[in-house]
Amino acid sequence: MLTKEELEDFSARAKEIYLDHISIDCVVFGFHEGQMKVLMLKSKNEEGWQLPGGFVELDEHIDVAATRILETRTGLQDIFLKQFHVFGANDRNKQHNEMYADIVPTESNFFAHRFISIGYYALVDFMNVNPTPDEFSDLCTWRDLNDLPVFLLDHELIFRTALDTLRLQLSYQPIGYNLMPKEFTMPELQKLYETILDQKLDRRNFQRRMLGFGILNKLEQTRKGGAHKAPYLYSFDLEKYKEALKEGLKSGW
Amino acid sequence: MLTKEELEDFSARAKEIYLDHISIDCVVFGFHEGQMKVLMLKSKNEEGWQLPGGFVELDEHIDVAATRILETRTGLQDIFLKQFHVFGANDRNKQHNEMYADIVPTESNFFAHRFISIGYYALVDFMNVNPTPDEFSDLCTWRDLNDLPVFLLDHELIFRTALDTLRLQLSYQPIGYNLMPKEFTMPELQKLYETILDQKLDRRNFQRRMLGFGILNKLEQTRKGGAHKAPYLYSFDLEKYKEALKEGLKSGW
Repeated sequence: MLTKEELEDFSARAKEIYLDHISIDCVVFGFHEGQMKVLMLKSKNEEGWQLPGGFVELDEHIDVAATRILETRTGLQDIFLKQFHVFGANDRNKQHNEMYADIVPTESNFFAHRFISIGYYALVDFMNVNPTPDEFSDLCTWRDLNDLPVFLLDHELIFRTALDTLRLQLSYQPIGYNLMPKEFTMPELQKLYETILDQKLDRRNFQRRMLGFGILNKLEQTRKGGAHKAPYLYSFDLEKYKEALKEGLKSGW
Repeated sequence: MLTKEELEDFSARAKEIYLDHISIDCVVFGFHEGQMKVLMLKSKNEEGWQLPGGFVELDEHIDVAATRILETRTGLQDIFLKQFHVFGANDRNKQHNEMYADIVPTESNFFAHRFISIGYYALVDFMNVNPTPDEFSDLCTWRDLNDLPVFLLDHELIFRTALDTLRLQLSYQPIGYNLMPKEFTMPELQKLYETILDQKLDRRNFQRRMLGFGILNKLEQTRKGGAHKAPYLYSFDLEKYKEALKEGLKSGW
């Protein structure tokens, strides 16, 4: 637990550097070969796990703040984070407010104020990054979606909302460019969607729909080796992929 | 233009009532029979038009604040507003900051602070509501999407982002329950989608897709009168509609 002196010192510094009442929390999903995880921190100062979060500097764009916060708290660099929801219930950080106000009164304690938190999310290959805890955390680690810890504050709601957003996003935006190898088979791509949705998909429907989006190139060569008929290889058409990221997938209207 | 005394008075009151650094702006789209409009205010104190906006009270949920702000500024009651994006560029309200800081210095002027704005949007039948300007506005009125005025600050970006969100939403969420009569024909529903998307749609694709969503009931009776074959009537299956609002439309995965 922080001492009164430490908290007063942190609070005084925070007031000079950060905007009051606004925080950012990041939900980083990790995917690799059919597994999905979420990046979490175990705090040194309290029980329970939290999402990597922090505050916005006085003259900093919120998107820049999100990237900086994620890097500072987890060591993850250059992650493309996307805003997905604002968490603004009036009592959302009451638990923290009371804990902090017990040590230093609210008026002179930045951390005992009400904070409205902007949620950002990202999906990365968890084999490509190396999470590192910051000075406030004992652990910074991937937690399996089937074995989640107890979350602090409203962080479980933030996590669930990010997961719902990611799943909905599959219907209107392309995904997977940073997760698939350069060339991949349709079953490999289907596995990504099945992992995110946590459900089995019909092979034919999936193929028809994916091809209908017009973001894949079918390659000349097939995947060699193996007993079965060699499956076709595909790659993303990067130009069309980027266009669909901006405009939404061809939805067949 | 506000006087120094008026601004000092407003600022002192605002500091007691509202959270610093956070604002809300509402984009209310109006639809009626193939026309689409957006609700805007013309300020008494400056040139240009703005979206109805305001601040969050110290102990108020942001969703409650959005509804209150819309009602206070436009007279529209009980509108279901949905959060869609946060606008947090560091210089987004520089234009206002400088204007207000010229009258009362920033330190003692709430309105000259940096504000991060949470965007909310709604889609209503503009024949069912009666916009009324508040004390700060000369006009509160529907502007046609094909004849938009000059927007203040970043309000054009907020409007465009809301419109993009609404268009994307057609792919993954049901729409129209509050806009269509209780019973309607497929061409009438198609007209709603065409108006929002601002493009003609293929009749057969539209019908196949809409029916595939599983949110419509086909009624026994047809629309009588007229020279052509009487078209079938449909109504929304409210239970499935609400489920799809929550879970996303059956997307065919």
